[in-house]
Amino acid sequence: MRTLKFTLQYDGTGLVGWQRQASGTSVQGLLEDALTTIEGTPVTVYGAGRTDAGVHALGQVAHARLGIEHDTETMLRAANANLPEAVRVIDVSVVADDFHARFSARSKTYEYRIWNAQVVPPFRRLYVWHVPQPLDVAVLRAAAAAIIGEHDFAAFRGVGTPVHSTVRRIIDAGWREQSRDEPLTFHVSGTGFLRYMVRALVGTMVEIGRGSRDLGEMAALLASSDRHAAGRTAPANGLFLSRVEY
Amino acid sequence: MRTLKFTLQYDGTGLVGWQRQASGTSVQGLLEDALTTIEGTPVTVYGAGRTDAGVHALGQVAHARLGIEHDTETMLRAANANLPEAVRVIDVSVVADDFHARFSARSKTYEYRIWNAQVVPPFRRLYVWHVPQPLDVAVLRAAAAAIIGEHDFAAFRGVGTPVHSTVRRIIDAGWREQSRDEPLTFHVSGTGFLRYMVRALVGTMVEIGRGSRDLGEMAALLASSDRHAAGRTAPANGLFLSRVEY
Repeated sequence: MRTLKFTLQYDGTGLVGWQRQASGTSVQGLLEDALTTIEGTPVTVYGAGRTDAGVHALGQVAHARLGIEHDTETMLRAANANLPEAVRVIDVSVVADDFHARFSARSKTYEYRIWNAQVVPPFRRLYVWHVPQPLDVAVLRAAAAAIIGEHDFAAFRGVGTPVHSTVRRIIDAGWREQSRDEPLTFHVSGTGFLRYMVRALVGTMVEIGRGSRDLGEMAALLASSDRHAAGRTAPANGLFLSRVEY
Repeated sequence: MRTLKFTLQYDGTGLVGWQRQASGTSVQGLLEDALTTIEGTPVTVYGAGRTDAGVHALGQVAHARLGIEHDTETMLRAANANLPEAVRVIDVSVVADDFHARFSARSKTYEYRIWNAQVVPPFRRLYVWHVPQPLDVAVLRAAAAAIIGEHDFAAFRGVGTPVHSTVRRIIDAGWREQSRDEPLTFHVSGTGFLRYMVRALVGTMVEIGRGSRDLGEMAALLASSDRHAAGRTAPANGLFLSRVEY
């Protein structure tokens, strides 16, 4: 048996998210089914992060223990041949036996994409949040700077999700301006994230960037730990798990 | 009554094409329904080019005669409010009464997008033709150069489509190399196109670019007028009507 590391891209449209659910199509379920077909016996896969329903991935990572001795290139082709085109394995590598996609991860990076113009090009509609109101990118950047470092993100989590601690460390966060070809993009790297945290941060920053909330509220919200004081949760379809660092 | 010119983008996935059909969703049908709702009486729209089922548009043009006196910005918003997100009006302008989207057009430009790598990113799968075999871009460019000018394109049309003449004039044609972010793209401008002509040209050029056909066959096919001698018709989902020049 070897431990294999799979790097995946997926279009989360219409999927129930990473984790296998009682009903609906999950990425975990699709990958387990594909690898079970290749291995011939049931395979369990472990993902680095549980992306929610409708969230996309540019570089999700998963691991599984497999007995089959395909080389990694053959394994990549075989996995893709058994997956729908909306889910693609982009890399396969052999890793140490004790590698764990989730517990070995040092940090994760997410992107959140916004189309900030009156009309969204049809080809982008599934992959951006449409915000037609003008956004001040300098203000968005100042708001993002306020979250860098170790903070209690209790104000920016899914309401009612139980966790031991709501303190997380953000390594980097910032905004890339919209160009003709690329959306306005928030990127954030951290050692861990609470459920809905990135989308709650984006929802709040957009309210600040539109001028309907003061910039100073970012730090105040971090201090408050009050989820109901923060902005709306931005829609799932703008969010991408971009990479996992080990 | 004024004549209005509408510039449209659409994602052709799942649509029956531009033209209204007995069944299925067409762009013409969607736009006529939207403008009829705004006008209050039935509106007919005329498109510059009849894109086939599954073909996309970055700059389709249509015109309609309307009595309602909205300014163009209001008309744009009202049209988009009555269209699905897969179809967007990106510009509205008032034109001369005798403007006709099809008959006033001087030339049209199409793009055909190919993803030339082993794995297609999931977010591109609906908008490219996947060609995993290596393609020689210099050879593709030489093949494209052979079609510039006035030629009989009988070898590159839909089998059995009746037309008066199969002679068309190509003003420009070429290939843009694939980059990390952009597909390998064929662009072609001409005064007119036969049905399936761009897709038949692309299918044939790809066979040449893969080395399964000689470069010299491009000119030979133009001379032969034999549809059955040309390459396969490339899939609809890589084709975009990019713009119409007046």
